[in-house]
Order: sequence, then C-alpha cells, then structure tokens
Amino acid sequence: MRAYVVPQLGPPEVMRVGEVPKPTPGDHDLLVEVHATSINPVDAKIRVGTRPRAVPLVLGFDASGVVVGMGAQVKGFNIGDEVYGSPNIFGFGANADYVLLDARATAHKPKSLDHVHAACLPLVSLTASEALHERARIQPGQTILIHAGAGGVGHIAVQLAKLHGSKVITTAGRDESIAFCRDVLKADVVIDYRKEDFVARVKEITSDQGVPVIFDTVGGDVFKKSIECIAPLGQLVAITASDPGAAAPLLLYKSITVHYEFMGVRVAYNLQPEKQGAILSAIAKLVDSKQLHVHVSKVWKFEELVEAHRAIETGRTIGKMAVRVKD
Amino acid sequence: MRAYVVPQLGPPEVMRVGEVPKPTPGDHDLLVEVHATSINPVDAKIRVGTRPRAVPLVLGFDASGVVVGMGAQVKGFNIGDEVYGSPNIFGFGANADYVLLDARATAHKPKSLDHVHAACLPLVSLTASEALHERARIQPGQTILIHAGAGGVGHIAVQLAKLHGSKVITTAGRDESIAFCRDVLKADVVIDYRKEDFVARVKEITSDQGVPVIFDTVGGDVFKKSIECIAPLGQLVAITASDPGAAAPLLLYKSITVHYEFMGVRVAYNLQPEKQGAILSAIAKLVDSKQLHVHVSKVWKFEELVEAHRAIETGRTIGKMAVRVKD
Repeated sequence: MRAYVVPQLGPPEVMRVGEVPKPTPGDHDLLVEVHATSINPVDAKIRVGTRPRAVPLVLGFDASGVVVGMGAQVKGFNIGDEVYGSPNIFGFGANADYVLLDARATAHKPKSLDHVHAACLPLVSLTASEALHERARIQPGQTILIHAGAGGVGHIAVQLAKLHGSKVITTAGRDESIAFCRDVLKADVVIDYRKEDFVARVKEITSDQGVPVIFDTVGGDVFKKSIECIAPLGQLVAITASDPGAAAPLLLYKSITVHYEFMGVRVAYNLQPEKQGAILSAIAKLVDSKQLHVHVSKVWKFEELVEAHRAIETGRTIGKMAVRVKD
Repeated sequence: MRAYVVPQLGPPEVMRVGEVPKPTPGDHDLLVEVHATSINPVDAKIRVGTRPRAVPLVLGFDASGVVVGMGAQVKGFNIGDEVYGSPNIFGFGANADYVLLDARATAHKPKSLDHVHAACLPLVSLTASEALHERARIQPGQTILIHAGAGGVGHIAVQLAKLHGSKVITTAGRDESIAFCRDVLKADVVIDYRKEDFVARVKEITSDQGVPVIFDTVGGDVFKKSIECIAPLGQLVAITASDPGAAAPLLLYKSITVHYEFMGVRVAYNLQPEKQGAILSAIAKLVDSKQLHVHVSKVWKFEELVEAHRAIETGRTIGKMAVRVKD
C-alpha cells in the first residue's frame, strides 16, 4: 500500500511516498481503508523530534474510512462500516491507504458528513472532550477561558463548552479568527490578544476573581500568563509540555490543578480506550443533529502532504485541514 | 494579649513576645482562647519571606482552645466549647493568647486528646485529606506513593490512605523515620531514599507501570523525579511550589494531573470553608475511635518558640511539634 513515510526526523520535505506492507489487525483492531485523514500540529512536532519517536514512521492521527478487516475481539463493527477514529499515536498513522484503529476507541462516522469532514474530528474532539469533561469537569454556568478558539482543538472546545452551558471567553489574533470565534462559534467574549492583555481583560470580566477553568491550547508564555488570571482552586488544562517556571508559587497559593491532556494515552496504554469510542459516538450524534460543526478550511490531495505540513507549521489555520487519501 | 510578633522577615530570632490587641470576631468567626498551637514548615517559609506576607504578622496556623466569643453568623458552637482548627493563613495566627477561627472550618476537638495533641492536627489533616480525597481521589486497592511518611503531613496521609484501603509506599531517610513508618504507621513498603533510588524501586514494585497517585510532601528534585515513576493518567499532588522543568514533556506524554494543594484557600477566599469543618469533625471521630493517631515528638513552651522554629527548619521532625500556650 501507499504511505507517506518519515524516514528521518526533519522538515516537511523529508516525507516520501513509498510502498509499505498493509498492516495486520491485532485482536482489538479494525483494518480501515483510509478515505481521508487530517493534519494536526502533533504531526509536525513528531516529525521534527519535539516528541521523540523512532523512525521510520507514518504520521496522520485521524482517519475516516471503511472497515475491510478486523481482529478476533472486535465487537460492534462489520466489514463495510464507515468509521472514524484516531490511530495509536505511538504506531503507524493514517497517511496511508490503510490504517489500524482500536475498535474500542472508534465509532461509526457521522452520517451527515463525508469522509473528508469526518476525518477532521477524532483527535481534536477527543482532546477537547477529555480536557473539558474528564479533566476540568466544566459546569453549566461557569465562565471559562479557552485559548485560540479558532484553532483545531479550540473551535471544537468552544462549541462543546457552549453546548454544556458554560460562558466562553476565547482569544484570537487575526481579524478572520476573531470574526470566526464571534460569528460562527458564538463565543461570549473574544479577546484580541494583539490589542489587549488577556490577563487584564479576564480579571476585568470576572471582577478580579479569575476564571475557574482555563483550557490552554497554545502553551509557553500563554500558559504562564494564564496562571495570573485563574481563580483559586481552578483547573488549568494544557495540551503542550508547558512548565510554570517562576509562576509555580502562584499555582500553589491558589491551590490550582494543572491537567496535562494527551488523548493518545488511552489507546497506547490500554486505559479504558472504550471511553474514546463513547466520546466519538456522542460527537457523531451532535454533528448529525447540527449542534456541532467541524470547520474545514482546506482540503489537500494526498500528493500535497509536504505542502500541507508547511501550512500547519504557520499556526494560522482556522479550524482544520483535511487530506483526501482515496478519491 | 501576648503574641509572638514577627516585626520583620528573617531568622527565628526576629520573633518577639509583645502585647497586641485581642482580635474582634467577624460574622463567621470564633474567638478562641488558645491553649496550644503547633509548628508547621509554612511558619518558617512565611517568616523568611519564601511565601510573601506583609509584616508585622503573627504565625502559628493551628489552634486548640476554648470558645470565648463569636460573630453573629456562627452556628453550632457555644461559649466554653473546646475546638480545634486552622487560622486564616493570610491573617494573624495562633502564637498568641487568642485567635480567630472561621467557625465553618472549625470542629469540636477530639475528646480523647488534650489541647497539645489536638493542636497538632488541623493543618496537616486538612492538607492530607484534601490532597488524597478531594484532589487525587484515591481509591481502595490503589498503590500510592507518599513521600516523607514520617513527616507532619506525611504521617497523617499514610494513615488516611491505609484507612481508605490503599496500599502505601512511602519514603524515609533516617533509621528512626524508617522504623516509625514501618512499625507505627504500618506503611506497606518503606523505601530508604538514602540507599535506594525510589524511582527504580517504585517501577520494580509496579512491574514498570508506575503508581497512579503520588503525594509529594517534599518538593524540588523529589517532585521532578516522581514524574518518572507515575503511571499514565496519574495524579501528582504537591504541597510545595515545585516546577517540573525539563520533566514537563513527560507530564504531557503520560497525561498527568498535577494538583498544587494549599489548604489555606478555602478560608482565605471563602470557598466552601464548611468542607474543612466537615473534615475536622471526621478526623476527630477517627481519633476518638483510635483509628488515627497524631504523633507529637516534642512539646515546646510558649517562651521557647524561637528555639522551636530553629528545630522545624532542620526538617528532621518525626510527626509534629506542639507549643503549649496556656498552662
């Protein structure tokens, strides 16, 4: 089968289309013919070595496609089913004609979406849902801050939080991102971080109390600054390897919980992967009932993957970018 | 009334006995005649300025004594009641003849204990209970690691975890501390951290899986190393302002939750302080039924407070040190 192989760590250009053996499903795996995958920032991080992995490897940690085989322990799926899910992030990804998905962490794809749109959902939906519900346990009526609401994870997180009854403050830094957060996602407050200090604005909005939940999808200085506007006993969720540095004492004095959220561990370490199948089934229902929308700003051809990787590295994507694998 | 005043930040010798006005209870406060208080490491941290506070101040964040007055909103207490609790850590402490306790975070003292022993319980019991139950949510049957089991917080935490049905691994570094953890606290495993690498030992005990919960009462390098032996989706509770530094990526790859636990916030920020009253009532029952024991290794006279502060700074205390305020 075809696969985009990363033979060595490096820039987008290291990737090459090659022939690799079709994978063989383990007991819990579905063998899926990939119709579409998507690009996530983690692809670039793995490719350059920020997240250490052995090479050669195949990236692409989203898949939407058709079941063509399965392991002995698989339940609830049949050959020919249209499914979507996120391949084991420590295994081979979906930048290929076929991929393995742990059936327990997989669901039938939303009926109302084509594969290209469905492939943009798994990784970001699992990340956003786990961050908000399993980790921070957001509550209706809470005011929460979600950084970079226009991003891949951000745009799903803003919608999930709104569906849960939370009041959402988000940040954005370009006119079209701001408009997207305000007009499409219906965030309650959109802070233009180029023009305003988000810490000051959040303190103003919350009468100096701070917010009980911050979901930081950006990291670095945004993580450190977030600690200044989180309320005592607050929940800070990060999806980057950020460290508080000099802000650590403030984490202690406010008795804060910091969740490092990485959706890959449930499948990789076999920690109740069925929770992810349940999340993706729920996401499919929300999508099919038009309560949740995935925004696909660009669809790349399989042959354009190198160019797509250059694009994800700009950090300017609104919503998601898909890759069509099978025409 | 008499109070040990810290007129400026500095070494133990800055503290002076002086006359200060007896405090006036706010709506939710009990005015308590202090019979005993205890020494906690936080006293020394505040005194030297590690935890910034305005001076002059009065330290001593535990109290056991008798109610002599109360605010208009107080319920459940009468003049003459014997109570124990932890004064607002941002207010004036109990190194004085009288102190204010938020009635909602206060309980009747254990009947089976004198004031000297009761005064050793509030701050460490609230810290240990919140750390294990509210934050890490330990489960029966779980194997958990508690650092420095012979310490003030540690010796209560080991007992609470055992009472909950958890299997407790703890660390200690002197022969008498090791014997105390093993023979008095009945920890399941005591690691001598001078002779063994605790990370390697925990990995060995858990067949390389790591432990789902670590309660780190030490901080610094112990915090950073703990990240190496925590299981994916694990809970790490710190009571120091520790920073993961270069271990931050490991927190992300294992999707860890880090709780910074500071018992002072519930009273200071009025965040359900009644939860602390409930904890102290439960602790009193455990003590009176002989299921929980407070270990008081030394009782200081009020006049010896400077010397007591020098002793806490050695970090070698087994269990707790009390200060008798009223004979």
